[in-house]
Amino acid sequence: MRLQFEQKLGNLKNRVLVMAGMAEQAIQRAVEAHQTRDLSICDLVDYGERAIDRMEREIDEMAADLLATQQPLAHDLRFTLAVIKINGNLERVGNAAGSVSDYVRSLQTYPLVDLPVDILRMASLAQRTMRDALRAFVEADGDRAQSVLSVDDGMDQLHKTAYHSLSRLIERQSELAPQALTTLMIARNLWRVAGHAKSIAEDVIFWVRGANARNYMQHAGNGRTN
Amino acid sequence: MRLQFEQKLGNLKNRVLVMAGMAEQAIQRAVEAHQTRDLSICDLVDYGERAIDRMEREIDEMAADLLATQQPLAHDLRFTLAVIKINGNLERVGNAAGSVSDYVRSLQTYPLVDLPVDILRMASLAQRTMRDALRAFVEADGDRAQSVLSVDDGMDQLHKTAYHSLSRLIERQSELAPQALTTLMIARNLWRVAGHAKSIAEDVIFWVRGANARNYMQHAGNGRTN
Repeated sequence: MRLQFEQKLGNLKNRVLVMAGMAEQAIQRAVEAHQTRDLSICDLVDYGERAIDRMEREIDEMAADLLATQQPLAHDLRFTLAVIKINGNLERVGNAAGSVSDYVRSLQTYPLVDLPVDILRMASLAQRTMRDALRAFVEADGDRAQSVLSVDDGMDQLHKTAYHSLSRLIERQSELAPQALTTLMIARNLWRVAGHAKSIAEDVIFWVRGANARNYMQHAGNGRTN
Repeated sequence: MRLQFEQKLGNLKNRVLVMAGMAEQAIQRAVEAHQTRDLSICDLVDYGERAIDRMEREIDEMAADLLATQQPLAHDLRFTLAVIKINGNLERVGNAAGSVSDYVRSLQTYPLVDLPVDILRMASLAQRTMRDALRAFVEADGDRAQSVLSVDDGMDQLHKTAYHSLSRLIERQSELAPQALTTLMIARNLWRVAGHAKSIAEDVIFWVRGANARNYMQHAGNGRTN
């Protein structure tokens, strides 16, 4: 029966990794849509966002089912709770990709201009943070998760710079306001993706370190008192 | 021992309501700071945001402890999972309040101008959505939660209108770009608060309806196979 339990835990972890792959792809596509101005890619992002929403519910149900039928303890319990939290963060990454895609669509209605914001750099930073946080999850590596949080990746600074550069640009060339505003929203969504990735790193720390720190096995010994 | 279990569930619910009160107060204060331009209120918001972050961790630990020691089933299990999700959403409301407060601070450096966006109306809508979602939680009322999701409160429209009005204003009066941009960010954060409140309503539905729909009691009968 332990085998069935391990299998369910493994399935849950795999499902989260599929979900993570979908979220990463959504961001990748949204940025590609921005670079190529190919709106058919935006449709793919929207389609993917709906699939991510469905997957979120499926994973929540799997986690609830695992808790109900297997009643995991200690490390496994915290893993399952971390999955629920990571799942929510991945769904938010999907939302951010959907937002980027919406803004790319509205950019399309204005002439193409060169703007003082490095969307590709922000996208690549956001994606790297996502990958690092997910690798910490896969490897149950609290130190790696901690470094996602403590290393300054420069994203906040990039976001601030984008905000101020675009604001100054608009003051000088007000006719560029629509494109500048829309691009600022795209930059903000990429900044948010990095934020969600950092939340995932926090969830990994909650899982990996919490079990050691609190030692739920002790509780379990005299637990189940209901 | 059932008594101890009920007590722990009750404590958890009370704690979430305290957290919700803190989140509501944070938004209330941030909007007040915007209306009065009193930066001492911004300091209170920042202080409150840190308290909300601590409370989030405390509630997550209480929920993990309850799952480990009491191993709730069916309705109670889903309630506990909903609490973990609602907790995350309330923390995000606290973040949004913190963002509003940061933008109020930067507004302070520019002359006061009248802008075509109804921040008070957006704040009051966001707060009403929060209250409705939390009432659905308190009363375990799936129908009320459903109506939070299905009734169009006009928030999306207000957000779009703010975006377009401010964009047009900037094109005409580019010297107002900093104030307009900052106020747009405040409007967006209020719109996000309503979004988090809607996520809370979804969490309530997951809890109240899921238990009926899936009937975990059956699983529990032949569960605990590990």
